[in-house]
Amino acid sequence: MDVHTLTRDLQVQNDSKIVMLVADGLGGLPMTAGGKTELETAATPHLDRIAGTAIQGASIPVLPGISPGSGPGHLGLFGYDPLSYQIGRGALEATGIGFELQANDVAIRCNFCTLDGDGNIADRRAGRIASEDSRPLVEKLSENISITGIEVFVQPVKEHRFVVVFRGPDLGGNVSDTDPQRTGVPPLDPVADDEASAKTAEVAKEFLKQAGTILADEPKANFHTMRGFAAKPALPTYKDVYGLRAAAIAVYPMYKGLARLVGMDIVGSAQTLQEQIDTLRDNWTNYDFFFIHFKYTDSTGEDGDFDGKVKRIEEFDAILPQVEALGPEVLIVTGDHSTPSFMKNHSWHPVPTMLASCRCRPDGNTAFNESTCIRGGLGQFEAKHLMTLALANANRLGKYGA
Amino acid sequence: MDVHTLTRDLQVQNDSKIVMLVADGLGGLPMTAGGKTELETAATPHLDRIAGTAIQGASIPVLPGISPGSGPGHLGLFGYDPLSYQIGRGALEATGIGFELQANDVAIRCNFCTLDGDGNIADRRAGRIASEDSRPLVEKLSENISITGIEVFVQPVKEHRFVVVFRGPDLGGNVSDTDPQRTGVPPLDPVADDEASAKTAEVAKEFLKQAGTILADEPKANFHTMRGFAAKPALPTYKDVYGLRAAAIAVYPMYKGLARLVGMDIVGSAQTLQEQIDTLRDNWTNYDFFFIHFKYTDSTGEDGDFDGKVKRIEEFDAILPQVEALGPEVLIVTGDHSTPSFMKNHSWHPVPTMLASCRCRPDGNTAFNESTCIRGGLGQFEAKHLMTLALANANRLGKYGA
Repeated sequence: MDVHTLTRDLQVQNDSKIVMLVADGLGGLPMTAGGKTELETAATPHLDRIAGTAIQGASIPVLPGISPGSGPGHLGLFGYDPLSYQIGRGALEATGIGFELQANDVAIRCNFCTLDGDGNIADRRAGRIASEDSRPLVEKLSENISITGIEVFVQPVKEHRFVVVFRGPDLGGNVSDTDPQRTGVPPLDPVADDEASAKTAEVAKEFLKQAGTILADEPKANFHTMRGFAAKPALPTYKDVYGLRAAAIAVYPMYKGLARLVGMDIVGSAQTLQEQIDTLRDNWTNYDFFFIHFKYTDSTGEDGDFDGKVKRIEEFDAILPQVEALGPEVLIVTGDHSTPSFMKNHSWHPVPTMLASCRCRPDGNTAFNESTCIRGGLGQFEAKHLMTLALANANRLGKYGA
Repeated sequence: MDVHTLTRDLQVQNDSKIVMLVADGLGGLPMTAGGKTELETAATPHLDRIAGTAIQGASIPVLPGISPGSGPGHLGLFGYDPLSYQIGRGALEATGIGFELQANDVAIRCNFCTLDGDGNIADRRAGRIASEDSRPLVEKLSENISITGIEVFVQPVKEHRFVVVFRGPDLGGNVSDTDPQRTGVPPLDPVADDEASAKTAEVAKEFLKQAGTILADEPKANFHTMRGFAAKPALPTYKDVYGLRAAAIAVYPMYKGLARLVGMDIVGSAQTLQEQIDTLRDNWTNYDFFFIHFKYTDSTGEDGDFDGKVKRIEEFDAILPQVEALGPEVLIVTGDHSTPSFMKNHSWHPVPTMLASCRCRPDGNTAFNESTCIRGGLGQFEAKHLMTLALANANRLGKYGA
């Protein structure tokens, strides 16, 4: 039985509030053998105090040894098995730039490229054309391409990358890439992998035909490829599976987009952590569940900036009393994956996680970091179980079976 | 591969004895932050001594955050995945009153109700009619209803609740409820959800027709509804999947019934824990596996009676030397779920569990409670794995693969 079948059946309504604080890439590693991690180095008086009344664990984002991207990392935290639910590349790219996908949409990652006189690809990324050079090309495509019966969106991402979204009836998402993955050959035609995607392939062909004409005389990029065709992923909503009115408070488009895919409302327009907390306070009575995303523990980790990550963790720690003051029934601190400064990358290492509630069974820990969590009362657990634990601790799940 | 395919293939016969002591609802919580649980508070010299030669763990009854009823809780302990094997509501109700379901049976939960002059439901529970008032009505139905080709059983449960069982060929269990879940409307007709249940729906209609006549002039309840139609669940037996001759020694009908569903023999008629242990001793040579159920750790927890639960745990601890004296190869102490006095309800919290055998790898724990178990050698594990561990420690499982 799918766990969401269970939570649909067992969900109970009450006035409780659940706050999930996600410090992106929270987990880390020592920079030298025997050293401390970023979280162990940081001064975190509030996290350590909360530990005394919380239960801790080490959250495995996907499976042992699997390092997730932001998509699977967050799906796990949201309680959606990241191996069962997948967000296609195109859909994730569109989500990442804040494009609000609808049920009838197919999203495609595109790369500007250059063709030689024979129509063969000379550069698959158009010399990694600068964003300021690619943006006018995107606008030109956006303004000039017209396909009967289909709404077309063309939006820039960065450098040679942009996104195309087709909106219309009967558009399947299974179409092959047109990037041949090498130079000296022409781009491939988009080919439907199933009958339901035949129309999408036709629409893509027409788009490429018009784009070829529009870009023909452009010196920096005279064509583009299409990859990662993807329909909007069919994710059941928080309201449906958990009975929760859920709000997302994030700064970056990617995380707003991921939250939107599971039916959360995006509230506020905070640009700082303090503004995020203000937004939380302002929306306290309107929602049951709050997802708050803090980006900088990840970005400093990716930069290999150990000291920077330590500072960001301390910044994160400092706002906790404001969250506690609101009196959530369940307060969760976690991350979507680890980003050790030592590795400058997302990693598979379990993520320090803590759940505070009057119904949790405290584990005697009095600090919050990788070492305490690995010996915490939740042990090591797959991230996808966290939402069920949150609901249970909020007294929002009835009994399974008599 | 299903774990029972494995245990069927690998099972080995020997003279070992396995005793599983189930203290219902064993796990608990502190009543105040920083306090002790019931098990941590109780004086348990025998449990603590056994801990020194045992391996401990925290058993997750179903999944993290899911609080089980007695059915799923015990199925897990018996090694049957409680999400794959489900006991229908009617079958569980019949089981709970000690009715021995057979393969051809369909069991139905019934509620006495009252109809107004227009045949609409005025009270769905007949004013929660007292047991002494409903019992004669149950007898009247039992004595007077007659359906050709079908054996019919009508048995009281409590207050407005009773159970009907149809026994006969070709009776599927998928029939819709007749309770419309509101008043002011007539009861619904029973409707078959599949072809195999068409005959059951017809039999139910005939039962309701006759019941309507028999109860017509009763002042307290002039009709009844039918809910939770369920065939006997198809659970493979202990003998089949484990090669074990299994005996259940329980006081309450529900637990005898659950044991019977997996093919255990119900032995003795003990009314006290001491009588249960006497029954164990008397039957020692006749069985390989003994399930002993102790109810009162759960009932005190449900009453919110922390001190009462502590006393019941101490009572349970006190009989352990008598079990040890019999010299079982494997001695297991566990519960089917937690019932914290703090919550007055079944809960999802992992259950303190301990397995003592000469082949276990002791974990250095010298006490038995929630805190020691969470750091025990079995870590956190799903309850459904306990039986395989029991068999292995009893040297009753061969090697998988060459």
